[in-house]
Amino acid sequence: MNDNKYTIFKGNVTFPKGFLVSGVYCGIRKNINKLDLALIYSQKECNSAAVYTKNLVKGAPIYVTMESLKNGKAKAVICNSGNANTCNADGIEVANKTCLALAKELNINANDIIIASTGVIGQPLNADTIISGIPSLVSNLSINGGHLVAQAIMTTDLVKKEIAISFKIGQKEVRIGGIAKGSGMINPNMATMLSFITTDIAISSPFLQKALIASTENTYNMVSVDGDTSTNDMVSIMANGLAENEEITKEDENYFAFLSALNFVNSYLCKCIAKDGEGATKLLTCIVENAPDLETAKLCSKAVISSSLVKTAMFGSDANWGRILCAIGYSKCDIDINKVDISFKSKNGQILVCQNSVGVNFDEIKAKDILISDEIDILIDLKQGKELATAWGCDLTYDYVKINGDYRT
Amino acid sequence: MNDNKYTIFKGNVTFPKGFLVSGVYCGIRKNINKLDLALIYSQKECNSAAVYTKNLVKGAPIYVTMESLKNGKAKAVICNSGNANTCNADGIEVANKTCLALAKELNINANDIIIASTGVIGQPLNADTIISGIPSLVSNLSINGGHLVAQAIMTTDLVKKEIAISFKIGQKEVRIGGIAKGSGMINPNMATMLSFITTDIAISSPFLQKALIASTENTYNMVSVDGDTSTNDMVSIMANGLAENEEITKEDENYFAFLSALNFVNSYLCKCIAKDGEGATKLLTCIVENAPDLETAKLCSKAVISSSLVKTAMFGSDANWGRILCAIGYSKCDIDINKVDISFKSKNGQILVCQNSVGVNFDEIKAKDILISDEIDILIDLKQGKELATAWGCDLTYDYVKINGDYRT
Repeated sequence: MNDNKYTIFKGNVTFPKGFLVSGVYCGIRKNINKLDLALIYSQKECNSAAVYTKNLVKGAPIYVTMESLKNGKAKAVICNSGNANTCNADGIEVANKTCLALAKELNINANDIIIASTGVIGQPLNADTIISGIPSLVSNLSINGGHLVAQAIMTTDLVKKEIAISFKIGQKEVRIGGIAKGSGMINPNMATMLSFITTDIAISSPFLQKALIASTENTYNMVSVDGDTSTNDMVSIMANGLAENEEITKEDENYFAFLSALNFVNSYLCKCIAKDGEGATKLLTCIVENAPDLETAKLCSKAVISSSLVKTAMFGSDANWGRILCAIGYSKCDIDINKVDISFKSKNGQILVCQNSVGVNFDEIKAKDILISDEIDILIDLKQGKELATAWGCDLTYDYVKINGDYRT
Repeated sequence: MNDNKYTIFKGNVTFPKGFLVSGVYCGIRKNINKLDLALIYSQKECNSAAVYTKNLVKGAPIYVTMESLKNGKAKAVICNSGNANTCNADGIEVANKTCLALAKELNINANDIIIASTGVIGQPLNADTIISGIPSLVSNLSINGGHLVAQAIMTTDLVKKEIAISFKIGQKEVRIGGIAKGSGMINPNMATMLSFITTDIAISSPFLQKALIASTENTYNMVSVDGDTSTNDMVSIMANGLAENEEITKEDENYFAFLSALNFVNSYLCKCIAKDGEGATKLLTCIVENAPDLETAKLCSKAVISSSLVKTAMFGSDANWGRILCAIGYSKCDIDINKVDISFKSKNGQILVCQNSVGVNFDEIKAKDILISDEIDILIDLKQGKELATAWGCDLTYDYVKINGDYRT
């Protein structure tokens, strides 16, 4: 995941060849100035894959998409914000009706549609409201609508999360674009996190699924905003093959070139999601290195990034490293806890605050200066192996409480 | 755990016969108006037991107490606040020196002392500071010092947590008293939670330990304030036998009478700890009933009480039951998620908001009125078994962020 390996272009899901998008207001949200319905459409049928929330409670759209993607094919993604269509008696029916109406308007099969919803749980969603927006959604399809579709999937997100990159497979230029939304309820194994990736690479459905699962493990599953795992999380990817590379059908160098690019896209979106976590003022990146195994590295970095006490200390720019060591201690990892080094790093410098699990006599003013930054790396050296993991999170602030104290009204 | 079974008396650890206490200021804290050193002393040697944090990182006093209690005997507890004596190179040495100085002053053995510390991690603790307070600590020992000792163990706690009850074993009156401190970092398997229980019951050390473990499982391990597990948690119990009941040496009806009383004491202290969680304005009690097994009931109730989104919703008196169902969904329990009923209850009434995992059309004004209370029960009926578990927590507020944003300075 070398951050410098790829150039980031302006744009998002319409950067790869053959994708059109639109975003409209259909009436789900009370605020008519916010878009609430998004469409991504590929002119050519795509090999497609998705990963879903592991919450036992799943939104109705998740079930419908799982069914549709059984054949590994899709042509469109529809996503509404403002209502999660979860825990509603008629949820599946509403999601199916929506797909049928969209399929008719696009003249495609209903099971070629990926459907997603995000918003409040347990409030009935009126199918007619969404369906009323479909004609204008389809008539507005455009290669230039990227900013609208990125906006239409937002809930409490403050900024759009989007990326577009390209890389070469042989002589062919391959492009990947993505949009995502956060921004609370983000934790282990994804959470009110939606991410839609498009690419013009030619790759078989099974290897597209394989790459998506591998990448999600190290990206979306390593983000925590508040420890809650949502009912509606999904990351989907559509690959239409218009880049005309030789189709990837095995784990060769082309597969790994694609996986590397996909990791870059997904980790970029993860950082966007963490940085825009509800109420967040700082992006926290926790890098655990020299762990005895990958699982241990992940457990430690996730525990640190998820600790409310670490998160509030970072909000206060307080170098309270004891809370970091404490979080490692309860992370259920099996390590020698007496070897741990902890440093803080930002654009303002780097400082070692704990060596062999004992505090060092560090310069508090320098530490404060480093922690005042809006992007902080928490560097943990376990010194008992060679594995490394990175987790992303954000600080815990007054505004998190404010945003979530009365979300429904 | 019938709340009406025992009368609560004024007082705490000196309510049982033969215990004296004192609390002084020795200079660990900067604020000279806060006590920072506490002593509990039994005139007769006690059978004693303790349970400890499961964090891999343990405060130095934990190791020293573990060693001392190997013989199941103790005569005194010393506890300082303001410094956790954790992650210090000389921590064990400082704790041992403290015990030696206290032993000399009390004319007892050093390994008859239970030692505990609470406060900031990783800041050196000067043994001389504590030792300087020991003469006045001992000379002030009194049956009337209960309020001082309860104060001296407090950190960010706003209120003292104390209880005293009595019950009968045969013709003998047996008394139990307790003090505890919270108030952040309280989660699975205890956290900056200290609780010191005294009793005049006659019980063997092994059965005292057995009862303490059994009771902790259903009380301290079912409290969550912020999901963090501290390095210094400990619950200790001292039983001096002065009630003169026939010594309990097996699991007979007297043992279970004691266990029931101990559960009452510990659950009372747990509610105090949760209600006084850092920044909390509300005590949340989550009761999960009709679970297929006890583990499932515990997993569900702990997940609900630990969810930042549930906690902020309760702060805002928002009947956002979807977040409760969502927390059950990611709790890793193995249940039929479609059968769940959820109700809210307080002194202002009770309301069903979700039936068979689907929202019911409830009266929002009535729900708000119920949730505006400072003690809220979240009632969850899984309808797939007969087991029940209770977990305690609190809301997540602006003040939690404020308190923890810059704790060290």
